[in-house]
Amino acid sequence: MPITFTLAELAECSGAELQGDGNCLIHGVETLDHAGEGQISFFNNTKYRRFLRDTRASAVILRPADAKDCPSSLLLTDNPYLAWARVTRCFAPSPEKGSGVHAAAVVDADARIESGAVVAAGAVIGAGTVIEANAYVGPNCVIGRNVVLGEGSQLLASVVLMDGVRLGKDCLIHPGAVIGSDGFGLANDQGRWEKVAQLGSVVLGDDVEVGANTTIDRGAIHDTVIHDGVKLDNQIQVAHNVEIGNNTAIAACTGISGSTRIGSGCTLAGGVGVVGHIELADGVHVSGASVVSRSLREPGVYTGGVLAMPHKVWQKNIARIKQLDSMARRLKTLEKALEQLRGKQE
Amino acid sequence: MPITFTLAELAECSGAELQGDGNCLIHGVETLDHAGEGQISFFNNTKYRRFLRDTRASAVILRPADAKDCPSSLLLTDNPYLAWARVTRCFAPSPEKGSGVHAAAVVDADARIESGAVVAAGAVIGAGTVIEANAYVGPNCVIGRNVVLGEGSQLLASVVLMDGVRLGKDCLIHPGAVIGSDGFGLANDQGRWEKVAQLGSVVLGDDVEVGANTTIDRGAIHDTVIHDGVKLDNQIQVAHNVEIGNNTAIAACTGISGSTRIGSGCTLAGGVGVVGHIELADGVHVSGASVVSRSLREPGVYTGGVLAMPHKVWQKNIARIKQLDSMARRLKTLEKALEQLRGKQE
Amino acid sequence: MPITFTLAELAECSGAELQGDGNCLIHGVETLDHAGEGQISFFNNTKYRRFLRDTRASAVILRPADAKDCPSSLLLTDNPYLAWARVTRCFAPSPEKGSGVHAAAVVDADARIESGAVVAAGAVIGAGTVIEANAYVGPNCVIGRNVVLGEGSQLLASVVLMDGVRLGKDCLIHPGAVIGSDGFGLANDQGRWEKVAQLGSVVLGDDVEVGANTTIDRGAIHDTVIHDGVKLDNQIQVAHNVEIGNNTAIAACTGISGSTRIGSGCTLAGGVGVVGHIELADGVHVSGASVVSRSLREPGVYTGGVLAMPHKVWQKNIARIKQLDSMARRLKTLEKALEQLRGKQE
Repeated sequence: MPITFTLAELAECSGAELQGDGNCLIHGVETLDHAGEGQISFFNNTKYRRFLRDTRASAVILRPADAKDCPSSLLLTDNPYLAWARVTRCFAPSPEKGSGVHAAAVVDADARIESGAVVAAGAVIGAGTVIEANAYVGPNCVIGRNVVLGEGSQLLASVVLMDGVRLGKDCLIHPGAVIGSDGFGLANDQGRWEKVAQLGSVVLGDDVEVGANTTIDRGAIHDTVIHDGVKLDNQIQVAHNVEIGNNTAIAACTGISGSTRIGSGCTLAGGVGVVGHIELADGVHVSGASVVSRSLREPGVYTGGVLAMPHKVWQKNIARIKQLDSMARRLKTLEKALEQLRGKQE
Repeated sequence: MPITFTLAELAECSGAELQGDGNCLIHGVETLDHAGEGQISFFNNTKYRRFLRDTRASAVILRPADAKDCPSSLLLTDNPYLAWARVTRCFAPSPEKGSGVHAAAVVDADARIESGAVVAAGAVIGAGTVIEANAYVGPNCVIGRNVVLGEGSQLLASVVLMDGVRLGKDCLIHPGAVIGSDGFGLANDQGRWEKVAQLGSVVLGDDVEVGANTTIDRGAIHDTVIHDGVKLDNQIQVAHNVEIGNNTAIAACTGISGSTRIGSGCTLAGGVGVVGHIELADGVHVSGASVVSRSLREPGVYTGGVLAMPHKVWQKNIARIKQLDSMARRLKTLEKALEQLRGKQE
Repeated sequence: MPITFTLAELAECSGAELQGDGNCLIHGVETLDHAGEGQISFFNNTKYRRFLRDTRASAVILRPADAKDCPSSLLLTDNPYLAWARVTRCFAPSPEKGSGVHAAAVVDADARIESGAVVAAGAVIGAGTVIEANAYVGPNCVIGRNVVLGEGSQLLASVVLMDGVRLGKDCLIHPGAVIGSDGFGLANDQGRWEKVAQLGSVVLGDDVEVGANTTIDRGAIHDTVIHDGVKLDNQIQVAHNVEIGNNTAIAACTGISGSTRIGSGCTLAGGVGVVGHIELADGVHVSGASVVSRSLREPGVYTGGVLAMPHKVWQKNIARIKQLDSMARRLKTLEKALEQLRGKQE
């Protein structure tokens, strides 16, 4: 039985303005070119304008300026992608997470599971831990001692929260994420490494999302801190004592080294590396696969790296990198020599 | 008790031509330089020719042209590494996976476990899911609802398959892999991020291998699709709505951004990054640690990056990168000035 | 109830020389600027000298030469960070891991759990495996058959050790690590890939640390070998048949390709990539995000890559990389032409 809404209901939930048949029944979402009757789509990227006029969608979310190009009922808004996000969430299947603590979960007698919280099969929860109201601990998650999982927060499956980690409300942690593992702290004793105990923890604010197999290390002395609204994609590494500001979004495979502070409203694209002990200002945007080696005090876009090209082109040119300094000096010498020659001629 | 075959049996299983004693008993595989009696080896790389003449292996797999250099019994073939692959599989220990559903697994009453399938201890399987004949769900795996695990496919341990994911036949998924986690879809509302529900799923064809701790996200509207025979190494990230063509092989630590289509018969070496919304043609090969930022329409080898060199050499030269444009302009100016000077002299 | 030591006890455990009140009670560690009464701090980095004179710490670990600048009791040593490491470990909370085999663990009848070893809830252990004295198998770990977990070694949570893996004494394996997954060995048969069975295993020496979600593949024929005292951070990928020498430390997100040998006493910073079949000498240090493509026979520091810069600066200059060879040739041509002109003038 599909989920169904009237278009008027979707206008309401998305905050967009209805133009057309509010009673029209919508049972799903689709792209402009694939949509058919009963489906809603959106138009946000001019690249797809050719699909707009011929769409068979029953309704389309778009900007008022584009309304004339579209044959269907409309939801009008200045931020179509935001309205789209809200509509997609209407159609997300309900989780059916069961209720209470599953018989095959292992919860310490000194843990507290608050009302409406669900603990799935195979989860293991340590002493002193609090699972707040309506939180969800998915199958095979492991939660240590003295952890706080905030109200409504969800650990989807096989997530590990180590001792003392604290999550705010409405966090969403994807499978395989590890939060609160030891930071990489080592002291050298004549070649041999000795461990520096990692005595801080990890604190996540409210509404933080952590991707699959992402790791966030506990701090050495103080805590690693991820502020409200931060969104982390898959396979990100956050080292000890990093701080990430409100609403910063970081794409997959990025690594942040220890004690670095990232401002709020930043975006780091995929595969970025950030060295330790530096600061990125609010509103810094780092392009994919770039390596940030010093503090970035000004907002703006930063990029590094040499992108892929046909191998022979790369091979011929990249060897010259090691001659760059010499080339620059020879250029300077030539300029001077030419100046001299000209002088003589005049 | 070691596994033992006659050399004739190994000729048969590998498709190579026997030359020598078919009754010779082989109980294991070894490299040319370490092999002794009862062991089989192979010669595929001319770099190791010095080991060939003196090998003490009872049998060697090689090309007919190399037969004269080898004292042992032989398996002759034009593709020694392929024959070797088949021989190694003969010696792989049988898995002994038990049978049926382990008492310490938690299988929803509405899941179906077909004949010959095995579900190990600690596995958790949701409603509506089908584990097809002879499939294997290893210890502590988590499988959501409405998943299909195809005939003979294996999840080795601690694998997570989220709701609605479908795997074909004979797939092999290594520990810690997560398939079907949410794609990283976010809409911005005046600085705050709102989630775009990820309503597609992930579909794997037949004979797909997925490495340890690799993550494959579910699609936003349509599915993420991995076609037959694709081989993914460890710690790869495949974002939402990516499509990977038949028999493409991707080495570890590579990340593919959203909606990118990779052709068939491609190879991506380790640590590669591919941006979103582009296409790689069939037969594209990307060198290790390269970043692909635009569609590659022609087959061939593509490379990027500046490889490691002694730090002082790097330091002296790399700073000049920021002068490259100015250097190029100054070079042009010099060429013109010189031309002028020459003109005057004539 | 906080852990408390006298300063004399901390001098003893850290190997540093006491100067001041040995009876002073210390209940925790802090940074110089945040420390108060009952807390110990350390001074190792001249950058923080301004905090030294005004610290309110009850004791500070520092070099004798810095003693005059500090108002508190002191622990004097030539290696303050090492003494600090030892002091932090005094304050690390005791693990309280329970005892024996938890009722919710699944241990094969043919596995051997030695005295003092602990197996937590949800762990699954296969036949022929030995968990040596005082070792710890954390919640939801999966251990295959014929594994050896050495005396005092710890698998913190959700760790997977595949068949035949052997760990030495006092190893520490963080959550989500996978050791002994198949190496990425494939033979091509006219486009289609066939698997090369990975018949080796993984051997870890004593005192090895493996970070969260790190993966170490089993060897193809011989073993992958990680020697004593090696420290691996999170999300590292170690491919089949790699060998890593004593006391080498590798930071997060680094990938080492197959059959590469890394010497002892090396450090690889975060995000490094190392190609296969090469050797790094003892004492090689690789800077963050560098890609090593050939053997490094000499100790020293190696670096590669083009670091992030403002996007417009990057955009203007990086396109010139493809002109580098032509620029170098044109420079040469100019030099010759100028030489000629000069000759004519003389």
